[in-house]
Amino acid sequence: MKVNGKHTRTIWLKEDDPCVVQVINQQKLPHAFDILDLRTVEDCRAAIQDMTIRGAGLIGAAAGYGMYIAALTSPEKGARAFIEKAAGILVATRPTASNLAWAVNRQLAAIRTCSTREESVKTALETATAIADEDAESCRRIGEHGKEIIIEMARKKQGGTVHILTHCNAGWLAFVDYGSATAPIYAAFDAGIKLHVWVDETRPRNQGAGLTAWELGQHGVPHDLITDNAGGHLMQHGMVDLVITGADRVTRNGDAANKIGTYLKAAAAKDNKVPFYVALPSSTFDFGRVDGVKNIPIEERDSSEVRFVTGKTADGKIETVQICPDSTPARNWGFDVTPARLISRLICERGVCEASEEGVLGLFPEKRP
Amino acid sequence: MKVNGKHTRTIWLKEDDPCVVQVINQQKLPHAFDILDLRTVEDCRAAIQDMTIRGAGLIGAAAGYGMYIAALTSPEKGARAFIEKAAGILVATRPTASNLAWAVNRQLAAIRTCSTREESVKTALETATAIADEDAESCRRIGEHGKEIIIEMARKKQGGTVHILTHCNAGWLAFVDYGSATAPIYAAFDAGIKLHVWVDETRPRNQGAGLTAWELGQHGVPHDLITDNAGGHLMQHGMVDLVITGADRVTRNGDAANKIGTYLKAAAAKDNKVPFYVALPSSTFDFGRVDGVKNIPIEERDSSEVRFVTGKTADGKIETVQICPDSTPARNWGFDVTPARLISRLICERGVCEASEEGVLGLFPEKRP
Repeated sequence: MKVNGKHTRTIWLKEDDPCVVQVINQQKLPHAFDILDLRTVEDCRAAIQDMTIRGAGLIGAAAGYGMYIAALTSPEKGARAFIEKAAGILVATRPTASNLAWAVNRQLAAIRTCSTREESVKTALETATAIADEDAESCRRIGEHGKEIIIEMARKKQGGTVHILTHCNAGWLAFVDYGSATAPIYAAFDAGIKLHVWVDETRPRNQGAGLTAWELGQHGVPHDLITDNAGGHLMQHGMVDLVITGADRVTRNGDAANKIGTYLKAAAAKDNKVPFYVALPSSTFDFGRVDGVKNIPIEERDSSEVRFVTGKTADGKIETVQICPDSTPARNWGFDVTPARLISRLICERGVCEASEEGVLGLFPEKRP
Repeated sequence: MKVNGKHTRTIWLKEDDPCVVQVINQQKLPHAFDILDLRTVEDCRAAIQDMTIRGAGLIGAAAGYGMYIAALTSPEKGARAFIEKAAGILVATRPTASNLAWAVNRQLAAIRTCSTREESVKTALETATAIADEDAESCRRIGEHGKEIIIEMARKKQGGTVHILTHCNAGWLAFVDYGSATAPIYAAFDAGIKLHVWVDETRPRNQGAGLTAWELGQHGVPHDLITDNAGGHLMQHGMVDLVITGADRVTRNGDAANKIGTYLKAAAAKDNKVPFYVALPSSTFDFGRVDGVKNIPIEERDSSEVRFVTGKTADGKIETVQICPDSTPARNWGFDVTPARLISRLICERGVCEASEEGVLGLFPEKRP
């Protein structure tokens, strides 16, 4: 999507030097837009591990490009061993990110078919490009399907502005382009639909305030930042026409694990008959699991994320402040699970379906037992 | 309740100078415990408006003392006009707070019976003292009634720890003493019941992280700070036995306006069959109103509260940081309304009742039409 008026992806080859991979340094957002060069496997490892790049789709693409860099920087002798070692290094950066291992294994399988180092480099680049392009295309299609839902709402409102609430960042910054939850928004906006987005700040890490608000602002989509507490009030007063969130994992029966707080919005949406959509690429499904509330493990993260907030001071410095007494203990679960019964529809690259086993398997018949 | 081991109220007359009202500067909490002197109506207006003092009961008591200061600082000629003008100034500070208008009107009615300026001052002081004392006594009784609910839950759990979630600060800092939502917690804790409190941070102003956590810590009540997003997940996993919040205004049929985000917790509590209690003194009732969602006006506050967070840096300085891009707009509603159908019971100083017109008028038969 657009940054300073120019179409940008989250990861790409440097224009005048195809030996360098470039990414947006998301640690610096929203207060600075910095481009980071990745030239070595170590650069890639560090960028994924310290969350300079983050989001399921982008991590997969970065792993793909990381393997290309591994092939490119491999020595003449022992190239294969070097590449296999790099694969291990990359996979170890974020053990729970399934796209990461998937992309690395896809690269390994492709590279193993090559007989020369030169051929390996060429194949690794083709595979990295394919992984990134497929991610973008998948999100683009989520956008096309989801756009229809927004157009239908605009029609129902007889051209009145469609107000959409989203939680966390399931935007293009988390993927290669378009995003999941944001893809329908961008597609509808680019098609001229009048819309406005309520952006939940998304404590504790404020990905809504820092990333989603930045994305939407850069692309020119009208939006307002709100606290995570505000959505219910807005729904009660007819100020939310629909909710769209992303997901970190969706079970076969349509239960959706997503950023902590998503479930609260879904419960309020149900209470106010506001449609609640979850947008996701196929790779986010966990077809082997049902009953997400019971069966999806929820990560508990460091309590310092709750006790401290980071932002920019009036002097333009990045500073971290403590919001509670020194002695206050905190707990910090990263995700919650929204039961399928609270979800109106799932929006995937294959189409839109009911959040139910029937709905999901209707879109993915090859997953029927 | 206790501060550094010493019993303290939130508002009182200065020990050696009865022309000065003293309050805890709640803007400085939790990082400093500062006392502020109020000497003029303007001091009182500013302290209420900028939330140096906040919370339904304390705002009422402060309005009472504010009217005493108005009488005290009124000119010999035109005292009555001065006092009536002060009343208007005080009432205008926080439009959603019904205790404010109630206290000011009680003072006006009392002062209007006086024939001299001297008598007005004396009457205004007596009335201010009565309002404060009644507030404290009323909260103490809320604690006694609500304690029984916690004891009953402890019995049901066969002595297991009772986990209570609360939102915002309806603690003693919001009243003169004891608090509303916290009164049952303090009473049960002091009675030896094993309990633990989940403290919502309560964005945008973080009264949970800054005030409730501070209060509970000072009194020794076990607690953990959580983000406003976390409560639904906890309820889904049986980690919340009951919710108690305060209220800023409750209609005759039991709809409760409280800090923004309360409604989200109530919707999730309903979805998980977790009992949801609202604790309030009689003065918080708006007996003349029904249908709170439709009829309670909700204050929209400055968007900077959403865009910035204040806390303590590692160097011990109080600093404010911006959490979103420079150009991001924000909206900031202060309250939401929890419909009576989501509230298990109301806990008042007169007893516990259903959140319904029948329930409320059962406790307050004199309000029957």
